[in-house]
Amino acid sequence: MIIATRLIVLMLLISIAQSATMAQRRKTVVDLIVSGGTVVTMDGARRVMDDGAIAIKAGRIEAIGRASEIGQKYAAREVVNATGKVVVPGLINGHTHVPMTLFRGLADDLDLQEWLTKYIFPAEAKNVTEEFVRVGTRLGLAEMLRGGTTTYCDMYYFEDAIADETSKAGMRAVLGETVIDFPVADNKTNAEAMTYVESFVKKWQGNALIVPAIAPHAPYTVSEEHLKAVRAFSDRTGAPIVTHISETKREVDDSIKAKGASPIDYLNRIGFLNNRVVAAHVVWPTEEELVLLKKLGVGIVHNPQSNMKLASGVAPVPEMLKEDLPVGLGTDGAASNNDLNLWEEMDTAAKLHKLISKDPKVVNAEEAFEMATIRGARALHLEKEIGSIEKGKRADLVIVDLDDLNQTPYYNIYSDLVYATKAADVRTVIVEGRVIMRDRLLLTLNEGTIKADARRYRERIIRSLGAGTLPE
Amino acid sequence: MIIATRLIVLMLLISIAQSATMAQRRKTVVDLIVSGGTVVTMDGARRVMDDGAIAIKAGRIEAIGRASEIGQKYAAREVVNATGKVVVPGLINGHTHVPMTLFRGLADDLDLQEWLTKYIFPAEAKNVTEEFVRVGTRLGLAEMLRGGTTTYCDMYYFEDAIADETSKAGMRAVLGETVIDFPVADNKTNAEAMTYVESFVKKWQGNALIVPAIAPHAPYTVSEEHLKAVRAFSDRTGAPIVTHISETKREVDDSIKAKGASPIDYLNRIGFLNNRVVAAHVVWPTEEELVLLKKLGVGIVHNPQSNMKLASGVAPVPEMLKEDLPVGLGTDGAASNNDLNLWEEMDTAAKLHKLISKDPKVVNAEEAFEMATIRGARALHLEKEIGSIEKGKRADLVIVDLDDLNQTPYYNIYSDLVYATKAADVRTVIVEGRVIMRDRLLLTLNEGTIKADARRYRERIIRSLGAGTLPE
Repeated sequence: MIIATRLIVLMLLISIAQSATMAQRRKTVVDLIVSGGTVVTMDGARRVMDDGAIAIKAGRIEAIGRASEIGQKYAAREVVNATGKVVVPGLINGHTHVPMTLFRGLADDLDLQEWLTKYIFPAEAKNVTEEFVRVGTRLGLAEMLRGGTTTYCDMYYFEDAIADETSKAGMRAVLGETVIDFPVADNKTNAEAMTYVESFVKKWQGNALIVPAIAPHAPYTVSEEHLKAVRAFSDRTGAPIVTHISETKREVDDSIKAKGASPIDYLNRIGFLNNRVVAAHVVWPTEEELVLLKKLGVGIVHNPQSNMKLASGVAPVPEMLKEDLPVGLGTDGAASNNDLNLWEEMDTAAKLHKLISKDPKVVNAEEAFEMATIRGARALHLEKEIGSIEKGKRADLVIVDLDDLNQTPYYNIYSDLVYATKAADVRTVIVEGRVIMRDRLLLTLNEGTIKADARRYRERIIRSLGAGTLPE
Repeated sequence: MIIATRLIVLMLLISIAQSATMAQRRKTVVDLIVSGGTVVTMDGARRVMDDGAIAIKAGRIEAIGRASEIGQKYAAREVVNATGKVVVPGLINGHTHVPMTLFRGLADDLDLQEWLTKYIFPAEAKNVTEEFVRVGTRLGLAEMLRGGTTTYCDMYYFEDAIADETSKAGMRAVLGETVIDFPVADNKTNAEAMTYVESFVKKWQGNALIVPAIAPHAPYTVSEEHLKAVRAFSDRTGAPIVTHISETKREVDDSIKAKGASPIDYLNRIGFLNNRVVAAHVVWPTEEELVLLKKLGVGIVHNPQSNMKLASGVAPVPEMLKEDLPVGLGTDGAASNNDLNLWEEMDTAAKLHKLISKDPKVVNAEEAFEMATIRGARALHLEKEIGSIEKGKRADLVIVDLDDLNQTPYYNIYSDLVYATKAADVRTVIVEGRVIMRDRLLLTLNEGTIKADARRYRERIIRSLGAGTLPE
């Protein structure tokens, strides 16, 4: 009798195990599941899903749903528990000069001309090498990842080295190699620069993480002939064009004086603008120029903190949003900010435009968050790939605390994210389906080495400028 | 021979131990020494001392010097090692409504009138009790301490409970009990309010941490008669007066219409203003009014983020600094900011005024840091007690990381503190010579309980306003 009972129990157990295995077999196997937590999708319907989950396969989002549904349908090699936290699309820093982190705080509170000619340009001339660029890039990548930025758009020198460091760190970027009409660190002539860009774009095009681009510095530092060549290069290769447009009133006035047209008018006249251009700043456009930029599909990147610190002016962002222009947010370089923190840019953007418009309703929290995610993706012409949590998109996800003291209590998810969340509240970062920061530990970058390298460069930079020349 | 050698060694050891003990005996015994680190004193000479140390006794600073000097002269029961970090005066949040942390993000991006009448006032009417105030205060104290704020100036209801919570947490505050011409949570009539204030001030005056104050809400919500009574109360007791002045253009226009004078003119005419008044905002003063405020010694608190978010305008801070007015920085309540983070206020103040003045040199990093420390102390009329690290002052000190990624590399201490340091970089907080946060762990407040209490109030507040009434 006892033996019979034992036998029945054993058979039952085997049967249960078999059906469990079969259920497991019926499940689709994916690489990673992020489960639990409030998922802020930023999709067209702006769905916010409590207790959601995301299945990820081969770097892309395979499915989104309730945690229980996803758990029934999918099995994963790796599960990240996001319970009690919020899962958002990776933030997009639309404009920076990442190696300039090494000049962070080198010389602040100065006139633009003094700042550039007395400190930044000499510091660059004396220090920027490929190794400098690698060290500064690693520092900037580490800072951005710890703040939940998964994609950034850059303009600097030695972009091939930046691409190498960025892809090694597993981060995503649009990287624009600078073209400018004077000798710079990596290329001494326009011909050299165009040769560099040619091989740079060829090397990186098709890479899952890196979008190589060409970056004519600005309409006042690159000749019409060279701008037209940049455009022809972009047309031929499909590479995006990253540039600065209409950052200061002086730039506009000078352009009108020299060329009889504002920077935007002039660039349009020479056929430079199109839907592969990413224009940083656009602080001083006219209403007609906004209509034109929209028609042409030019991406715009708003850098509120940099524009404030350098006293450049205020971009007409409420108007841009009203007309649904593709405008994202950027930090600009760390020399003019002084950090690479998109949470502060969102907060500042939302507050600044209320003040300037004298209307506390403009640039609401959801709109500010949009600018750092899906609208920022549109600014970089990458809205089909990133910027929201949707099936088929690249799996760039950020898991953020929702109960730090500065976030407590929480009533509205967008208010919480934009006005109360800090970079330090970011816990885990996933890019292209790969966890690259887990519970604030960077997995692809060594913080200690990065800091030691940066301190070494600091000494070198101070020496290069001569003792006692730095502002107190 | 061996025994003799041993004896000699033993005697030598005893002799060394004796002289060490004697040296120890010759040292002055203090309670606490903070040793190592870069000390940013904010004293008159703006001394910044590398490898500095501070000896603390009975809540006050006994001595400041090189770590080696202090180590030779003083022995302490407790030593805090600040090596590799920066030691700054505790930050001063010059204006807030601390229990309003419980309304953080309740209703954002609205017109001021709609925000107040549809959400904040009903939420207050239905929820503010002494218990609410205690819970909200603990939440705000915890947030402020974790961000390195050691002193705050408050205006709310049940300030006696706020004083109780603040002193229990070991934090410093100027606490103004509200006087307003309509029934509020704690007092239903002016007579009740004046009675409350009378016993509140009597109870707390002379406390080492708490400065009790009277807080007439604003010149447009308190009658002339009641304002004069407030002034008489302050004259009789020496209690400071905390109030809002000239926050919006509308307030100024209404005042001119109703009283034939701007708020500042009107308050001066009725003899209300003096060097015990702390005026929040002062966004819309004329040049003559600034001269007047200076002459009278009125303290001013600038709240850049709140003024931006509510589209109130921009206070003429560069002019205030030029005339050396006592102007500090405040966060305002968390319902209109949405945090209690002075690092962001410093950063915003420095950037905002550059933009508005079209001059990137105004409100430099040192001046912004001043506003959060020694100039903020002047705004609260406490410059003899706090705001700088000087012999004889209260020992309110904050130890901050200097090598977080966002601070790397570092060239200038004030740039680093204002433009690159975050609240999360604060490690240790000392108030009145007592360590109340050690290596980010709060020693006098229980974070878990605070969060649980806040979440409970959140549910209650949502219910009180009726389901579905909150903005999405």
